[in-house]
Amino acid sequence: MTKIGIIGSAGRMGQALAAVIPDMGATLIGGIDAGGDPVRLSNEADVLVDFSAPSALETTLAAARAAGTPILIGTTGLTPTHHALIDAAASDIAVLQTGNVSLGVTLLAKLVREAAAALGADWDIEILEMHHRHKVDAPSGTALLLGEAAAAGRETTLAESRVSDRAGLTGARSEGTIGFASLRGGSVAGDHQVIFAGTGERIEIGHRAEDRAIFAKGAITAALWLVGKAPGRYTMGEVLGL
Amino acid sequence: MTKIGIIGSAGRMGQALAAVIPDMGATLIGGIDAGGDPVRLSNEADVLVDFSAPSALETTLAAARAAGTPILIGTTGLTPTHHALIDAAASDIAVLQTGNVSLGVTLLAKLVREAAAALGADWDIEILEMHHRHKVDAPSGTALLLGEAAAAGRETTLAESRVSDRAGLTGARSEGTIGFASLRGGSVAGDHQVIFAGTGERIEIGHRAEDRAIFAKGAITAALWLVGKAPGRYTMGEVLGL
Amino acid sequence: MTKIGIIGSAGRMGQALAAVIPDMGATLIGGIDAGGDPVRLSNEADVLVDFSAPSALETTLAAARAAGTPILIGTTGLTPTHHALIDAAASDIAVLQTGNVSLGVTLLAKLVREAAAALGADWDIEILEMHHRHKVDAPSGTALLLGEAAAAGRETTLAESRVSDRAGLTGARSEGTIGFASLRGGSVAGDHQVIFAGTGERIEIGHRAEDRAIFAKGAITAALWLVGKAPGRYTMGEVLGL
Amino acid sequence: MTKIGIIGSAGRMGQALAAVIPDMGATLIGGIDAGGDPVRLSNEADVLVDFSAPSALETTLAAARAAGTPILIGTTGLTPTHHALIDAAASDIAVLQTGNVSLGVTLLAKLVREAAAALGADWDIEILEMHHRHKVDAPSGTALLLGEAAAAGRETTLAESRVSDRAGLTGARSEGTIGFASLRGGSVAGDHQVIFAGTGERIEIGHRAEDRAIFAKGAITAALWLVGKAPGRYTMGEVLGL
Repeated sequence: MTKIGIIGSAGRMGQALAAVIPDMGATLIGGIDAGGDPVRLSNEADVLVDFSAPSALETTLAAARAAGTPILIGTTGLTPTHHALIDAAASDIAVLQTGNVSLGVTLLAKLVREAAAALGADWDIEILEMHHRHKVDAPSGTALLLGEAAAAGRETTLAESRVSDRAGLTGARSEGTIGFASLRGGSVAGDHQVIFAGTGERIEIGHRAEDRAIFAKGAITAALWLVGKAPGRYTMGEVLGL
Repeated sequence: MTKIGIIGSAGRMGQALAAVIPDMGATLIGGIDAGGDPVRLSNEADVLVDFSAPSALETTLAAARAAGTPILIGTTGLTPTHHALIDAAASDIAVLQTGNVSLGVTLLAKLVREAAAALGADWDIEILEMHHRHKVDAPSGTALLLGEAAAAGRETTLAESRVSDRAGLTGARSEGTIGFASLRGGSVAGDHQVIFAGTGERIEIGHRAEDRAIFAKGAITAALWLVGKAPGRYTMGEVLGL
Repeated sequence: MTKIGIIGSAGRMGQALAAVIPDMGATLIGGIDAGGDPVRLSNEADVLVDFSAPSALETTLAAARAAGTPILIGTTGLTPTHHALIDAAASDIAVLQTGNVSLGVTLLAKLVREAAAALGADWDIEILEMHHRHKVDAPSGTALLLGEAAAAGRETTLAESRVSDRAGLTGARSEGTIGFASLRGGSVAGDHQVIFAGTGERIEIGHRAEDRAIFAKGAITAALWLVGKAPGRYTMGEVLGL
Repeated sequence: MTKIGIIGSAGRMGQALAAVIPDMGATLIGGIDAGGDPVRLSNEADVLVDFSAPSALETTLAAARAAGTPILIGTTGLTPTHHALIDAAASDIAVLQTGNVSLGVTLLAKLVREAAAALGADWDIEILEMHHRHKVDAPSGTALLLGEAAAAGRETTLAESRVSDRAGLTGARSEGTIGFASLRGGSVAGDHQVIFAGTGERIEIGHRAEDRAIFAKGAITAALWLVGKAPGRYTMGEVLGL
């Protein structure tokens, strides 16, 4: 059984990872949190899974490189400096850094990119998401990731085409824009829908997360996939074989 | 066959009304526009349907009262002064003034009010609408009407509970608020959905207009219903028997 | 705190009930299963919740009547004989027997009945449901309950209007029928949607269960509501104040 | 302007084609029906569009080949004999034969095939469609086309995996099957949705036709694309650049 070590084991995601590992044919060899020692964990684990804080990344990567242990990094809030550290580590070990560990969302982003590329600019793109009442930001990171996929399919960037939520006298919709709308309420784990609205027809591509455990499962699936891979920086798309 | 006269017959809605009247067992006796004479039309018609401009309302109502002809008023942009004129006319003739002539939306508003009254404040309410790319304002008038129904069900007002579309660091959702989100694209005639999001479950109540002809049909249905009614001010809910 | 006793405590629902009781301001005083003694439990509990087997009902009701303890009965597969036993018990104690303990579905059924009554026979009614891949029957009991509500709104019965799922050369849809369609897949806890399809517009009324815990919570909410009620047979609609 | 000739000009689709051609930068050079002469039409037109009957196909193709005029064939009910005639004609002229002229559905089928290939067999596939109350068969041809795309993505055939609509004691869902459900009601032009249901998450890929004019527009778009193409047999996917 593959031995997994968790960086950030006491956090919400760390606990979710620990809960799903036994059902996925792997074993949890240990976990650390702020102030913990990543060297011993890196030596004992076949793969590391990091959902901690950016401030811990440099030490973690140094330990993983020294031990030759691959690592999945799901920590958010990374700066260009952190990405440079990850690129450097990828010359020695297999690394997968991502803001989205859902296999379903990974596939969705690819489908959205393709659809945006195939459909002309006369198909308007709107992105809708709904999350639970406790979420404090909008749009969701996944909605933005889907918007980037749509913009890439159109060979532009989201920064150039993004339209914030609409209220008041907005005027008619501008061609080529990508609109976002966010709903909040109840306990919704996360619904996303990308709507391509043409004249007389619509294409709707969506994802519903019923249970936040899918994110933990996606992370462990990706971590298991990393074991034995050559050094380099990988993507969730490669895990799904896309 | 009931004889119908149209005030504002050259407008978009006037033309749509003319198109559906023959299929509804009625006959179009005539129509006028700005500068036209409502007296003769009022004398010849069994019922008037007014989708013109607020500035014409006083003359139109005087003619309808003189002739004793009931009137459906779908003109938008009315002020309290216009409403006072309508109230006065209602002492002589049957009048139905409304910003929404869809029978489906009329029913929806009633269901939303009931649901909001039955479900406690721990069910969050969100209202989503999508319209074609040419629409210049948001949220739609129908979305606001549904929001008012929801607020009334909770014995509050929309002004006190409305939350504009969300973007950025919004913080967690506040209990008792009613959120709005607007999508724009393609040729969508008008989709509305009211979501009640509780802990672990959601109730979704929605309406899809496939064709703008439903608004013309709803107006004529209401106009036919007015014929023979006692003087007074009526509502679309009464037309549906709600 | 209200003391709750569970009949059928080892079953799937019994365990779910035990899990939610502490969060609902109540306390679990004890539980029994096949062969257990309901007399002591009835004496100690303020209210009983029964999700066991029809064969146990007679003994359970006798104990509840002797102790004067109200009871919520969610056991399925009851025959007219069982219903006669329940009616008899209701002369001494408050009883609520139901095949549906979701507050959301209870409200939905009321809205469906109203919509069906308000909309003419030229609005076709279709009922769609989706459940997880392990469900062995179709349509779901809740879909049938919603169909009965729609039929009641039209002052007919489901037996007279029900149409099984469609395949092959079905011919055009018959006016007044109520169609059912069932989807199965993944881990879906239970989605239901009632569609009223008119000419040019649709009304959609739906419910999504994100988590099966809502059924346990609905049962406990109903049980707590029963405490202190006069003898009689109550409904879930009364619990919601519908 | 490209000159278009219609075979089957008096039919429902022929009339719809004639209605959209002026808005698409083309001109309608003429049309024929049963008994009409395709030779002259083939000589005058830049491209032919055929929505007539299989019995006319042989004569039509002979005229098109003689004139060197490309042809889009949307006629349904073709047998292997007809397909052999089309293959032979494709050695002389550009031919596109298809049962689906919607660009949106063409894209949808490609996305469905990809999603089915990327997701493992533990993602259940269900296909839902809704059409107006006059439709006499189920599932729709488009639903079957989407099912074939899903089956192809899994490297199997629809014949081996198709499950008819469910009713009664169906037992649990079998892995690898593709389920179909059909709703009928109102005036729905055609909604399709393919649901991939995994454990804890769902992907939904759908298409809504708001207006049957999209089929006429898709046919003319494909016909215009054929002009100037080398002899051969083309697909709707190639028109979209998929």
